[in-house]
Amino acid sequence: MSSIRVAACQLNTVVGDLLGNVERILDALTKATDAGADVAVFPELAVTGYPPEDLLLKPRFIADNLAALQQVAVATTECVAVVGFVDRALDLYNAAAVCHRGQVVGRYYKRILPNYGVFDEQRYFSPGDSATTLYRIAGVKVGVSICEDAWSPSGPISEQAAGGAEIMLNLNASPFFAGKLRVRERMLATRAADASVPLVYVNSVGGQDELVFDGASLVFDADGHVTAAATQFTESVMIVDVDVRPNFRKRLLDPRGRAGATALPVVPLSDEASSQRSVTLVAASQPPPLDPMAEIYNALVLGTADYVRKNGFTDVVLGLSGGVDSSFVATVAVDALGAEHVHGIAMPSRYSGPASITDAKDLADNLGLDLQVVPIEPAHAALHNMLEPPFARHVQGLTDENLQSRIRGLTLMALSNELGWLVLTTGNKSELAVGYSTLYGDTAGGFAVIKDVAKTTVYELCRWRNTQGSVPVIPETVITKAPSAELRPEQRDDQTLPPYDVLDAILEAYVEDDRTAGEIETMGFESALVRRIVQLVDRSEYKRRQSPIGVRVTPKAFGKDRRVPITNLYRG
Amino acid sequence: MSSIRVAACQLNTVVGDLLGNVERILDALTKATDAGADVAVFPELAVTGYPPEDLLLKPRFIADNLAALQQVAVATTECVAVVGFVDRALDLYNAAAVCHRGQVVGRYYKRILPNYGVFDEQRYFSPGDSATTLYRIAGVKVGVSICEDAWSPSGPISEQAAGGAEIMLNLNASPFFAGKLRVRERMLATRAADASVPLVYVNSVGGQDELVFDGASLVFDADGHVTAAATQFTESVMIVDVDVRPNFRKRLLDPRGRAGATALPVVPLSDEASSQRSVTLVAASQPPPLDPMAEIYNALVLGTADYVRKNGFTDVVLGLSGGVDSSFVATVAVDALGAEHVHGIAMPSRYSGPASITDAKDLADNLGLDLQVVPIEPAHAALHNMLEPPFARHVQGLTDENLQSRIRGLTLMALSNELGWLVLTTGNKSELAVGYSTLYGDTAGGFAVIKDVAKTTVYELCRWRNTQGSVPVIPETVITKAPSAELRPEQRDDQTLPPYDVLDAILEAYVEDDRTAGEIETMGFESALVRRIVQLVDRSEYKRRQSPIGVRVTPKAFGKDRRVPITNLYRG
Repeated sequence: MSSIRVAACQLNTVVGDLLGNVERILDALTKATDAGADVAVFPELAVTGYPPEDLLLKPRFIADNLAALQQVAVATTECVAVVGFVDRALDLYNAAAVCHRGQVVGRYYKRILPNYGVFDEQRYFSPGDSATTLYRIAGVKVGVSICEDAWSPSGPISEQAAGGAEIMLNLNASPFFAGKLRVRERMLATRAADASVPLVYVNSVGGQDELVFDGASLVFDADGHVTAAATQFTESVMIVDVDVRPNFRKRLLDPRGRAGATALPVVPLSDEASSQRSVTLVAASQPPPLDPMAEIYNALVLGTADYVRKNGFTDVVLGLSGGVDSSFVATVAVDALGAEHVHGIAMPSRYSGPASITDAKDLADNLGLDLQVVPIEPAHAALHNMLEPPFARHVQGLTDENLQSRIRGLTLMALSNELGWLVLTTGNKSELAVGYSTLYGDTAGGFAVIKDVAKTTVYELCRWRNTQGSVPVIPETVITKAPSAELRPEQRDDQTLPPYDVLDAILEAYVEDDRTAGEIETMGFESALVRRIVQLVDRSEYKRRQSPIGVRVTPKAFGKDRRVPITNLYRG
Repeated sequence: MSSIRVAACQLNTVVGDLLGNVERILDALTKATDAGADVAVFPELAVTGYPPEDLLLKPRFIADNLAALQQVAVATTECVAVVGFVDRALDLYNAAAVCHRGQVVGRYYKRILPNYGVFDEQRYFSPGDSATTLYRIAGVKVGVSICEDAWSPSGPISEQAAGGAEIMLNLNASPFFAGKLRVRERMLATRAADASVPLVYVNSVGGQDELVFDGASLVFDADGHVTAAATQFTESVMIVDVDVRPNFRKRLLDPRGRAGATALPVVPLSDEASSQRSVTLVAASQPPPLDPMAEIYNALVLGTADYVRKNGFTDVVLGLSGGVDSSFVATVAVDALGAEHVHGIAMPSRYSGPASITDAKDLADNLGLDLQVVPIEPAHAALHNMLEPPFARHVQGLTDENLQSRIRGLTLMALSNELGWLVLTTGNKSELAVGYSTLYGDTAGGFAVIKDVAKTTVYELCRWRNTQGSVPVIPETVITKAPSAELRPEQRDDQTLPPYDVLDAILEAYVEDDRTAGEIETMGFESALVRRIVQLVDRSEYKRRQSPIGVRVTPKAFGKDRRVPITNLYRG
């Protein structure tokens, strides 16, 4: 029995930051080498960050990425580095470079290019062909594949295992949604067991615009058991010794039996284990997976922190209404950035109750953030007077509600202009879906933290967060009072919308499951209600297009994974 | 020599409006039949409208589209209808149905699926395979292909011609950009001549969100000469007799010579010409192509009219500053909707000169639209007072400039709320590129008419429009005065930005040609200027994401054809 020491380098790269990414890669490579790793595995497109999107259309960007890869390659010594980058040959390829002793000694091109959901890889890349190569590292035949390649039962993993691979390395930039870890782990376990080959799955970590990569890199043995797991949502360099045994179950991979399989060519890199192998590893830890609420909460925190910092901001500002959404977003922001970097503004109008300010103050005290109170009445009154002549009547109704919301948006943006603070918006997915928001009002801001979190989940997350730490941070009254936008006297959300559990169930069916109104009615919801909600969703598309991006935590967010026309007369 | 009478049905369909699209198709089919056409050809995806985007992920939408196609098929009699729709077999296909005597008698699946620029077809469809069928109509062997299929020199057109097709029908939804018609015509002429086969190219017409389909359907003879051309930017049913002659040059299509080519199977539909063939055709007209400015202007008018009407609006409102951009947008809006449906609002601030109001009034008089004057000083003063405590100083500088712009945005949105008018924004592409605009201020609105028109082109278009009609509509002073946002005393754009001809040249290189700053410097622009402009473009990405959609008139707009990350540290 032989073994190979693998470093799973779960890095937080930044799109376009080629030099920074090279530094991150080389830092991790040093750690891997010092720990006696024979091979260090990095995420998909680690050199460019993922997804580079239309930067890939710039020939100069491709050239710069190749130069950055060279910087990695020349720094390699005995420890082999397997690094994601963009290669340019007849076309562009989503590639992995195998680097050893100062050179790129092999290249693998991703074969299965996802072009659904948030993915546009066929816009940029050609697929690799099936002819590939194995690499002998520390005497072990190693195969390489990239992300989606692993999701095909007859794809590169089974092919390379049938062709002689004794261990498979899989490089990933796999974005998070709630529950994906379990799906991914089950699939990978099956893939390893089907191919009777140990599998090292290395994922990126960190936020990139609306995507959050959740890390959680995994090592499987040839029976599909997890033997090591990296943390979720934090960077790590996990060093693991992977046992490699001859395994004749692999003959199952080839219908002609093992004898009929074609051995893949092998590039010999090293026959001996690393001279540093004497470094003793602590047994690889296997942190238990986070529970569902913790997982979403961590994704929101990481996505927010990375958006703010990677875009050069330090501080954020948000309106605190005393409601559950803004209270929750403030809590996420404090956990992401520290209380001293989060600024709350309460902007009561003539319709705000005194309890709202009290609740906002209690929250601010609990979180330790500064709260300023800016009553909007002066601007509200002035705008009423200013708009009376053109309307030939007093502003009222929806127009007046939107006016108040827009004065608040304008106030936050003025603070942002003056002080360089990024404005966080606080709308949730349920509101965004039905357009229960004011464009240029409460939707005004740079980052929409909970835009992919349904209202019912916001409540669950508040309750969960209140169980963390010694005291609850979100005042109980915030969670229990009836939701209201406080834009007219005695307003409550449930005067306009159905109860949120009903609303969210209809929305999930319509938005995430692509059902039509007719189909949702057959699920047992009242016909008129379903038609009204569906119409609200369709008619709000233009608002969503103008809303800021935010963290994706479901399989289908209102982001690049939902591409619907604004002009759309379908009423299914 | 035989001939076939073809109706090129250049229709303005609406995405999702399945029943409406069926009506449009059947109306045109009646015209075609009455004119003695043997075959009526409709645009790509005429049943669903193009592009249906993620509506295609709804199984019920696919089923409804199939039912709509059946409605078309059952209405067919002798005249064959070739209609774009979505077919569902093992997967989804971008398909053409051949309908005759009440039935779908054949199906063609698009083989080359564009997945670049504004196109995402590999997200939705599987490609058809090369095995296909010809149809004998009026004794002529007819081949069918769809849009991008025609752009490959070795694709379906040459294959079907080599396989026996005597005429090729090509169904399209080909979006406009300035100059595309000439590229398209040259390509199609080459394709017809290479294959020695007459070619009927039928395009959609109309606006769909940011896309405008420009019509301009074309008929080519087997030598690649245009024998008929439909109008640009308007619906039409063009009836043409196409001569079909045996042509032995086709042997060039097959490297083994004609003898080696495989004859494609032929579905016999009719051997006789239509009994209505006695209807005599007027000679097909060939309207000369519009000149470059007319083409762009017509695209803006059609795109705006269709966005407004297809989304259920009748009236629009916009701020009239007396500047060139808003004056031009008002002119487009009046040409699109009629002056009675366009409402101008002048919103002078303390920094607006009297000439601005005079210019706005002159323009409104020339166009015959109503102009209201709403001075923003009351709100401006109130907000200054309201914001002084949180800032601990008087609002000034950029914050104050944005404040004024946002009060204007808020005023227009209040009018929109109150009166149901769609707000048009007036920012041009140059401003949008460098972020020379106020988010939630002048970018606030539902449709951004000139967001893809560079400032220098706005001037050209104003001068061109002033030559149309008996008197110039845009006051000369509007065109000749120095551009200014009038947000502080004596402000002029050229205090902040380089001259617009320099700016636009740098922007074209950076945005449309994907060059990097370093590459643009080598074109002869000053290094510091290029770096500053490029940085402004990159830093404004978050603003563009929150800006309304508008008409695409260049090969690369700030829309679905430019997908760049917001979080992006690349500085090439």
